[in-house]
Amino acid sequence: MATAQLTTDRLAEKHRSTLDQALDTIRTRAYWSPYPEHPKAYGADGSLDAAAGLAAHQSALNTRFDLDQPGTDGWTGGEISPYGPSLGIEYPHADLDVLLPAMRAGMGAWRDAGAETRALVCLEILARISARTHEFAHAVMHTSGQAFMMAFQAGGPHAQDRGLEAVAYAYEEQTRTPAGRAGWSKPQGKRDPLELSKEFTPVGRGIALVIGCNTFPTWNGYPGLFASLATGNPVLVKPHPRAVLPLALTVQVAREVLAEAGFDPNLVALAVERPGEGIAKTLAVRPEIRIIDYTGSTAFGDWLEDNARQAQVYTEKAGVNTVVVDSTDNYKGMLANLAFSLSLYSGQMCTTPQNLLIPRDGITTDQGPKSYDEVVADLAAAVGGLLGDDARANGLLGALVNPDVKARLEAAAGLGEVALASREVVNPEYPDAVVRTPVIVKLDGSKPDAQAAYFSECFGPVSFAVSVDSTADALELLRRTVREKGAMTVGAYTTSADTERAVEEVCLEESAQLSLNLTGGVYVNQTAAFSDFHGSGGNPAANAALCDGAFVSNRFRVVEVRRQA
Amino acid sequence: MATAQLTTDRLAEKHRSTLDQALDTIRTRAYWSPYPEHPKAYGADGSLDAAAGLAAHQSALNTRFDLDQPGTDGWTGGEISPYGPSLGIEYPHADLDVLLPAMRAGMGAWRDAGAETRALVCLEILARISARTHEFAHAVMHTSGQAFMMAFQAGGPHAQDRGLEAVAYAYEEQTRTPAGRAGWSKPQGKRDPLELSKEFTPVGRGIALVIGCNTFPTWNGYPGLFASLATGNPVLVKPHPRAVLPLALTVQVAREVLAEAGFDPNLVALAVERPGEGIAKTLAVRPEIRIIDYTGSTAFGDWLEDNARQAQVYTEKAGVNTVVVDSTDNYKGMLANLAFSLSLYSGQMCTTPQNLLIPRDGITTDQGPKSYDEVVADLAAAVGGLLGDDARANGLLGALVNPDVKARLEAAAGLGEVALASREVVNPEYPDAVVRTPVIVKLDGSKPDAQAAYFSECFGPVSFAVSVDSTADALELLRRTVREKGAMTVGAYTTSADTERAVEEVCLEESAQLSLNLTGGVYVNQTAAFSDFHGSGGNPAANAALCDGAFVSNRFRVVEVRRQA
Repeated sequence: MATAQLTTDRLAEKHRSTLDQALDTIRTRAYWSPYPEHPKAYGADGSLDAAAGLAAHQSALNTRFDLDQPGTDGWTGGEISPYGPSLGIEYPHADLDVLLPAMRAGMGAWRDAGAETRALVCLEILARISARTHEFAHAVMHTSGQAFMMAFQAGGPHAQDRGLEAVAYAYEEQTRTPAGRAGWSKPQGKRDPLELSKEFTPVGRGIALVIGCNTFPTWNGYPGLFASLATGNPVLVKPHPRAVLPLALTVQVAREVLAEAGFDPNLVALAVERPGEGIAKTLAVRPEIRIIDYTGSTAFGDWLEDNARQAQVYTEKAGVNTVVVDSTDNYKGMLANLAFSLSLYSGQMCTTPQNLLIPRDGITTDQGPKSYDEVVADLAAAVGGLLGDDARANGLLGALVNPDVKARLEAAAGLGEVALASREVVNPEYPDAVVRTPVIVKLDGSKPDAQAAYFSECFGPVSFAVSVDSTADALELLRRTVREKGAMTVGAYTTSADTERAVEEVCLEESAQLSLNLTGGVYVNQTAAFSDFHGSGGNPAANAALCDGAFVSNRFRVVEVRRQA
Repeated sequence: MATAQLTTDRLAEKHRSTLDQALDTIRTRAYWSPYPEHPKAYGADGSLDAAAGLAAHQSALNTRFDLDQPGTDGWTGGEISPYGPSLGIEYPHADLDVLLPAMRAGMGAWRDAGAETRALVCLEILARISARTHEFAHAVMHTSGQAFMMAFQAGGPHAQDRGLEAVAYAYEEQTRTPAGRAGWSKPQGKRDPLELSKEFTPVGRGIALVIGCNTFPTWNGYPGLFASLATGNPVLVKPHPRAVLPLALTVQVAREVLAEAGFDPNLVALAVERPGEGIAKTLAVRPEIRIIDYTGSTAFGDWLEDNARQAQVYTEKAGVNTVVVDSTDNYKGMLANLAFSLSLYSGQMCTTPQNLLIPRDGITTDQGPKSYDEVVADLAAAVGGLLGDDARANGLLGALVNPDVKARLEAAAGLGEVALASREVVNPEYPDAVVRTPVIVKLDGSKPDAQAAYFSECFGPVSFAVSVDSTADALELLRRTVREKGAMTVGAYTTSADTERAVEEVCLEESAQLSLNLTGGVYVNQTAAFSDFHGSGGNPAANAALCDGAFVSNRFRVVEVRRQA
């Protein structure tokens, strides 16, 4: 470390207080973020402002993205923005038999650096990513189809928060045993005590693989990446082929920081596949891969859990998110809140509600009783109003991420009575973008043929207003849905303390995260790092939560050396 | 809890300071234990002294051990002491379709009690077990074959320590998020902040299954049992058919305490199989079973990991423990320490060294250079001397736990040149006990046919003195052994700082727990709770370590309920 530009002292000076604040916040669960949400906050202290971020993004288009990785045996790419343009970027293709051994080479020095230095290096990586948030926003927008502001916030500061949160958990977990040698003395009555010197070292498991997703490449990628790196593991990032750029930038920054801090840059590397190559399956079962983080389909997540037995596998798969509508003392607030939740990013969040369970006899509200039909019509009107203006609709919806989503949306209209039809929205800046408002379909929960629709995930801007016999019936359906299909989120609206308690009981018993009576500016599909858990890890939607002790504690092992004192 | 005899206040008064001390000690890793090691420490404060413990044990023999469990559909048993006598005890046999639902019934109240009350109830269970340590010692002795003093200490206070350690980790892990409702307020510039109220509840996963082992029913059983119970899970204990009594007594105490504290006693239950029934396999894949702790053979441990996919599976399997002998400045101390390690409980510990790697050109010592043959002969003499007196030998060796061990011991003499023959020792008190001293067999590490012997586990009083070309050769063999076969322990003797560093590097890279230059009263096969990790969880010998965050953090999930503030 002596010749490194970024010494541990320098890193500590820059980042130790941020780490301490993160450590404090994961205990209090209060609101906190070191990374600004507002685009205008950037431009000072070496960070890129809006214009510089856009320019940086544009300069990356139609170029070769060279990372100077060992074992590069060709170039591949082909991302096309959901907004239309081809990105024209070529990424290195890796010969794994060269790249993987090279990634392991620096692992000993990374281990010996200790938990604090590893955490501080991770914070420097995050700080440099933060400084380029405007640039990342364009990269996320043009790979995920998120609208710019969402790409900026969710792909920028919120993703960085989730990365920092993982670093904080990783640091805390590794420092539960004392660093350096500790004495141990066991009294033996009148004889001399038994004396040993003990030393505890957290050691990484081996190369960690991050399999990125199309919709939230940074937000879903950073927790696993930083948790593994901070616990001493090299990290190989395998992005979704449609969303390479945000993670390629991330790998670039990580390699740059590692080198400046005196570590082997190959501790973080990128693996981009040739079209149709399917390297995730190949990589997942390689013996060098000891940890896998995955966000995506249930089918491939289940395959990983079943087949990548040499690795610790953390998956976020699919679920059927449900909102129970029982009663409300703020009907207007409820409708507005739900309308926003259904519309944001065209329902392409793993946390977007899909099934709205509404008693067929209607609900009580502060505006008097409302029939099932009225509730559905009023919600449809709320969505329609929210998205009535095309400029606002474009800003909220973004673009459909891929043709599969469009196909599901179009098919959904045939599943039942359409309460709100999906509408095509023109994006004047990007005429090739496929922008659609959500569809709301009415289904009778008592009809077995309706169940085929609402009892499986329909990813995209599709919601089902499912009529149920009663709130008790809704809770039973909620329980069955979470248990069998999983859920990232559950919402409920009720003014009854008994019903509230009953919904809570279902969620506690089935391990689902519950939001009650949201009527303001917080939405069921949003979670805040340091405070909210994303998923529970206890139902079929995901086997891990972001972020808790279980997410980090098995990415390393503690090796003890004890010596005769 | 109002009508319970054991209120939370009363439990806190009795046990909170012990819990706090345990929480402190798992951080400092200093020596500590609340449970006395000395037999004479018992007798006051309601604990059983030696005579009372023996009487209690004897009164349990030849009786029906009724636990008043739901679904008891018959009686089974048949334990025979390794010391000869049949125990004559019948245990309840369970109809799982009745017992398992009954075990789940109390889970909600156990969850609602919270992490602190659960921990305190666990400490009361441990305290009552501690008070009956003399009785447990006989139960452990007559099921495992351990000599009385070892059964007393390892089966009593040391096992209780490991249980308490698991409770401390479980408590700490569950209290990382605040209990009760916490406010969350996100500033919104000039607008009102976003406000939520958040509540975090640790929830158990479901019924936990503990599959006990023959040799250390309490020591290996308590960590999983208490970790699962303390994190909110009901626990079904399935003892080894030859070692039921110690765990039946444990279940009895747990049910008694749970009931007195106002909880459902069925949160802990016993499942004893009929001869040949094989209920571990049936239980392991039942959907109600969500956690499994297992100690035993690699074959069944691997089967559990491969097949019990609905559960979190924690296994301690088999490994090939190695000691590298390079050089020493205390030759006599080294020989005495190794001789004791090989002899204790006839080598029937998962931590007993099996392979002693010794350079064929000999080693340097404080008594001058010693050839390979001299080292082996001196070690044989040290073991012979240690076990020369039959009374002392009986006190150290105990009895062979089952006929398989005896068969392996007898076969071992044919594997190479016998440096120390095994000797039959008569136990005057128990003439039917099968008591044997260890065999030491010389093997040439360069001969491929010798590898078949030393490169697989030979559980029992069998050690191989493997000649190697050099210490470098020894380290390469050590690395390959840990990587492919696993190891619970590694030992090394060296006066060279370079060699010390090289052994450490192998152990850090392959995740093995290392003891260096032990020449006094601490042995490579002994680990102390609160301070030493038992296994690493990072090599094939075990997928978990006792005890760390990873051992407890995935036994529960945290469910968040957030409300509009």
